[in-house]
Amino acid sequence: MIISMRAGATKEEVDHVIEQIGKMGYEAHPIYGKERVVIGAIGDERGKARLHALEAAPGVEQVVPILKPFKLAGRELRSDRSVVRVGDLKVGSDQFVVMAGPCSVESREQILETADAVKKAGAQILRGGAFKPRTSPYSFQGLEEEGLKLLAEAREKTGLRIVTEVMTPEDIPLVSKYTDILQVGARNMQNFVLLKRLGQARRPVLLKRSMMGTVQELLMSAEYIISQGNSDVILCERGIRTFETYTRNTFDLSAIPLLHQLTHLPVIADPSHGTGVRSLIPTMSKAAVAAGADGLMVEVHPNPEEAFSDGAQSLMPREFVELMADVRRYLPLEKRHL
Amino acid sequence: MIISMRAGATKEEVDHVIEQIGKMGYEAHPIYGKERVVIGAIGDERGKARLHALEAAPGVEQVVPILKPFKLAGRELRSDRSVVRVGDLKVGSDQFVVMAGPCSVESREQILETADAVKKAGAQILRGGAFKPRTSPYSFQGLEEEGLKLLAEAREKTGLRIVTEVMTPEDIPLVSKYTDILQVGARNMQNFVLLKRLGQARRPVLLKRSMMGTVQELLMSAEYIISQGNSDVILCERGIRTFETYTRNTFDLSAIPLLHQLTHLPVIADPSHGTGVRSLIPTMSKAAVAAGADGLMVEVHPNPEEAFSDGAQSLMPREFVELMADVRRYLPLEKRHL
Amino acid sequence: MIISMRAGATKEEVDHVIEQIGKMGYEAHPIYGKERVVIGAIGDERGKARLHALEAAPGVEQVVPILKPFKLAGRELRSDRSVVRVGDLKVGSDQFVVMAGPCSVESREQILETADAVKKAGAQILRGGAFKPRTSPYSFQGLEEEGLKLLAEAREKTGLRIVTEVMTPEDIPLVSKYTDILQVGARNMQNFVLLKRLGQARRPVLLKRSMMGTVQELLMSAEYIISQGNSDVILCERGIRTFETYTRNTFDLSAIPLLHQLTHLPVIADPSHGTGVRSLIPTMSKAAVAAGADGLMVEVHPNPEEAFSDGAQSLMPREFVELMADVRRYLPLEKRHL
Amino acid sequence: MIISMRAGATKEEVDHVIEQIGKMGYEAHPIYGKERVVIGAIGDERGKARLHALEAAPGVEQVVPILKPFKLAGRELRSDRSVVRVGDLKVGSDQFVVMAGPCSVESREQILETADAVKKAGAQILRGGAFKPRTSPYSFQGLEEEGLKLLAEAREKTGLRIVTEVMTPEDIPLVSKYTDILQVGARNMQNFVLLKRLGQARRPVLLKRSMMGTVQELLMSAEYIISQGNSDVILCERGIRTFETYTRNTFDLSAIPLLHQLTHLPVIADPSHGTGVRSLIPTMSKAAVAAGADGLMVEVHPNPEEAFSDGAQSLMPREFVELMADVRRYLPLEKRHL
Repeated sequence: MIISMRAGATKEEVDHVIEQIGKMGYEAHPIYGKERVVIGAIGDERGKARLHALEAAPGVEQVVPILKPFKLAGRELRSDRSVVRVGDLKVGSDQFVVMAGPCSVESREQILETADAVKKAGAQILRGGAFKPRTSPYSFQGLEEEGLKLLAEAREKTGLRIVTEVMTPEDIPLVSKYTDILQVGARNMQNFVLLKRLGQARRPVLLKRSMMGTVQELLMSAEYIISQGNSDVILCERGIRTFETYTRNTFDLSAIPLLHQLTHLPVIADPSHGTGVRSLIPTMSKAAVAAGADGLMVEVHPNPEEAFSDGAQSLMPREFVELMADVRRYLPLEKRHL
Repeated sequence: MIISMRAGATKEEVDHVIEQIGKMGYEAHPIYGKERVVIGAIGDERGKARLHALEAAPGVEQVVPILKPFKLAGRELRSDRSVVRVGDLKVGSDQFVVMAGPCSVESREQILETADAVKKAGAQILRGGAFKPRTSPYSFQGLEEEGLKLLAEAREKTGLRIVTEVMTPEDIPLVSKYTDILQVGARNMQNFVLLKRLGQARRPVLLKRSMMGTVQELLMSAEYIISQGNSDVILCERGIRTFETYTRNTFDLSAIPLLHQLTHLPVIADPSHGTGVRSLIPTMSKAAVAAGADGLMVEVHPNPEEAFSDGAQSLMPREFVELMADVRRYLPLEKRHL
Repeated sequence: MIISMRAGATKEEVDHVIEQIGKMGYEAHPIYGKERVVIGAIGDERGKARLHALEAAPGVEQVVPILKPFKLAGRELRSDRSVVRVGDLKVGSDQFVVMAGPCSVESREQILETADAVKKAGAQILRGGAFKPRTSPYSFQGLEEEGLKLLAEAREKTGLRIVTEVMTPEDIPLVSKYTDILQVGARNMQNFVLLKRLGQARRPVLLKRSMMGTVQELLMSAEYIISQGNSDVILCERGIRTFETYTRNTFDLSAIPLLHQLTHLPVIADPSHGTGVRSLIPTMSKAAVAAGADGLMVEVHPNPEEAFSDGAQSLMPREFVELMADVRRYLPLEKRHL
Repeated sequence: MIISMRAGATKEEVDHVIEQIGKMGYEAHPIYGKERVVIGAIGDERGKARLHALEAAPGVEQVVPILKPFKLAGRELRSDRSVVRVGDLKVGSDQFVVMAGPCSVESREQILETADAVKKAGAQILRGGAFKPRTSPYSFQGLEEEGLKLLAEAREKTGLRIVTEVMTPEDIPLVSKYTDILQVGARNMQNFVLLKRLGQARRPVLLKRSMMGTVQELLMSAEYIISQGNSDVILCERGIRTFETYTRNTFDLSAIPLLHQLTHLPVIADPSHGTGVRSLIPTMSKAAVAAGADGLMVEVHPNPEEAFSDGAQSLMPREFVELMADVRRYLPLEKRHL
């Protein structure tokens, strides 16, 4: 942390800040500049957020953080990449992992047909929501446990692994009974009670970036899970909210190589939510491979125009087959395989 | 909903969309324009989100919503303003309601001293967090039930009403035991399980706008609560996330008169989070009165520079006294009183 | 500037950065922390942007600016507020200045009728565009010199002062012939050639904040004008671009007290562009007074629904009369008068 | 355009809007819905922006545009892709075009050394700024004509084509004397006088997307140039401004396939400004190839840590060689070549 004093701060004000830094357990290192004094605070990084309060001390202009506040998720403690195992799959290795399926589980026919199609096209994991976070209370809210059972049946039939969302801590035991990966939706990236409880679960967690979450906040949310004992966390870039309205979100693909520099955790890309535009998904899937993603999450529906949710961004099975053909052409350049 | 076809869409494509609209239970009204066909879909508004899926139908360019998707929160069904009663207080009336107190309850001394100070300055409700949503797992997470008890003691001593945050559905019964208003924090604005459960609670709810939430999404979240049976919802504008970094958030004060046009629910302003800068809070409190806010929520701490959280945006008690003096000067112009 | 080295940076890397800082004319002050070294660079602030290039040096993690890069526009050199004189008017004093009129000058009748109406309602300055920056080349582009002459005629008839936009350096002499204040539109806030040339003009400049401009960038643009010799600069907050779509822009009213802390220059508010919604303008005008604005800029049109531009955010003359009545009620609380 | 009336609008209000639509030269098609009336307006798209003013008419709730307001830049009039010729180069064909060089021309040695290096690595066009738009008036503003001469000398020596920025209409003749492509910088994307004048120039124009420009606004700015007679426009995605601060901008790579759907114009990617982080540029260059970019613009400097501008995002020549090796591996998958 760097505490920058105002031009004209008095000696008493500077001394007071130095004293406060000491009281909070840090060492103060003042630099006396031409126009103002800046003071470095040295010590254990994890509690340093408290030093922000010094902005309330007289004569202080600004408190500027220098270090990254994440530890367990960061590369400084662990320089090799983590591999998260999901059954036989190794997420974060040279194996590229594709999760595909409908936004919502709608019916037995729908989910089994989709599972079969995405399996044949090369996906290894089936996605599908049983508990659905919907903006409107009047929209379809998911089949709940019935949906989970249908996902389990699809796994039985196809051998695909399952990823599905858990929306609230109470549901973790129920959802864990049926799924291989517990998904945290974008709107829950900072649902800290949920994150802590997932840190005690014995399932890998897929943590989606919030549409307004910074890369640093995403990593702090991963830190919540890891610090409770569960280090099987997979990150997912799925688009952020900006002023652009042609696309549903702005797909921040640069976040993928950036995250690979900052964390050892695997990072996958979700071009379906990332763009929200069906015709852009195949191209952006190729781009995600080139950007170094460890996998993809793609919405596929047998009949998008009648989907209960996200129809406008769901691919038909034959479109997904073409997407996978493109992905296969690109994987060798990144030394990856399915 | 308006479904806009591509220039060059075939007659078959247009007819198919018209048929699909009919199948979903709406009436289709095509307009044959110079360059393209647009089709209006008429019927009950609440389920219309499903029509979005038609963007996946061949020949469709865009599906544009026309109507507002909220009903119970909207002014079309209820043209007068709602008054939410909190004990003797009437939020949403000509009584202006001020909620003040620390970000977190830190100790008995701290909360009692603050309660006493804000009561004397004219506040009617004490705020203070016992369960704290913090970006970092290493930051102070709140005193939990111990904090709730201290708030109850402060109420006992001062007669102030209490507002405090509930972070997860399981905690609603516990928090309800001690508080007058259940607060939904900005990061939980779209925690739909929490919203539904609060719709079944028998306490007024203070719903804070998410830093990434549109005004429409805020109203849809209120709709979740009301549609479950609890219509005592108070909305709170507390700043949104933008590119500007001088302030912690961008305080969207225009949202207050806008919300008053769109909804009958009371709307208060939180200039502490709205700006995140202590020196801006008094001025923006006056501006909030002028913008028509039904009340204020302000962070006050006896010693901001040692606060466990939000010190940089907390006022000292004597600064809060000045703020209240300013507010008192402005209230008569809006025909309000404390 | 603070240069933060990576954890694990070698002694050679640190020494190299210290040497480079010296070569660029600054003094280096290293702080050796627990996990990394941070280096303060001391010296004249104005050229320090160059130090950013050190992010390219081996071992450097981040270069963090500490000081504000504006000087002439800042309060550190000049602690009292500047007053910009426009004829008898004193912008930035206890006189509150209202600029009102149509978006575009459309015809002799339109501008004279509007001028007369806004004068009677209490405005002191007539606004109206003769050169119009329009998103589409197919939209009305302004009456150009003809429009300027009509503005001059309106001044003649009413005694109102004139503010009108200049879009390009070549037009400064022409526009200066007819106007009292030269306006820089939001899209030209970083048209640096225009800013420099306006720094050599002998007319006050109204500098509008860009919809993508930070407060710091706005002040740097003012610095361009002042550093060329023209210190008569009036700043204008007119809304920034965010994710919210109900309003045309997000009116960043907190920027007004923030600017008053950072700069001695006068600051006015434009609620017409700030919100883009006619029904919000009167309320946000009151809020702007309470926020400490030195004046207002408001769009008024005799027949908004037939306006060539900005009809949806233009007030009718009778609505403007009501707005001014409200403003008059609020001014005494801020010790201001018209 | 769709004009949506308020629920409860009177027959007189609806009839008035229908009449106004007729007066402006459009055909009105009302749809009488359950809760409100919506009215389609049919006619020539280009002037429809005027219909927005109807938001000021009594009873109107919202005016919603349906059609895209660009014509000449759009694909509806021209379905094949345009190829912009720059000497022998064909931008927008299966030839992939790489523009590389320093942010600013700083000296003869610097530019000649860089030109030589990027030529050897495979670039076909040299970039370098002689007129520099800088946020601060105290930063290096460019060598101006001297810089242009050095660029011309580099062209002479290497055979590379030249792209350089023109900041103001008056400079177009001077800059045209020395350059092959006239660049419009991001901050000038809506400098409409400059755009119009470039529409009369006889040089291809590289139009950079503004950091707050929507895709639609970018195309409207291209429309300005084309509508004046110059259809040799190359678009460039270079990152937009969002809340994320780890990267300088958010590189909106999805805009590339989106633009290819909306326009026939070539689209290149600038990962240097797009990310602002040197270590991300090589990866994002590969991703840009996969996203279908027609070329790249990359900042290269012989000694980034001493660069006068943009050092933190400039590659060293040997890093650029590696980037080009990666690009070469990816081009065949997109059926492109250098």
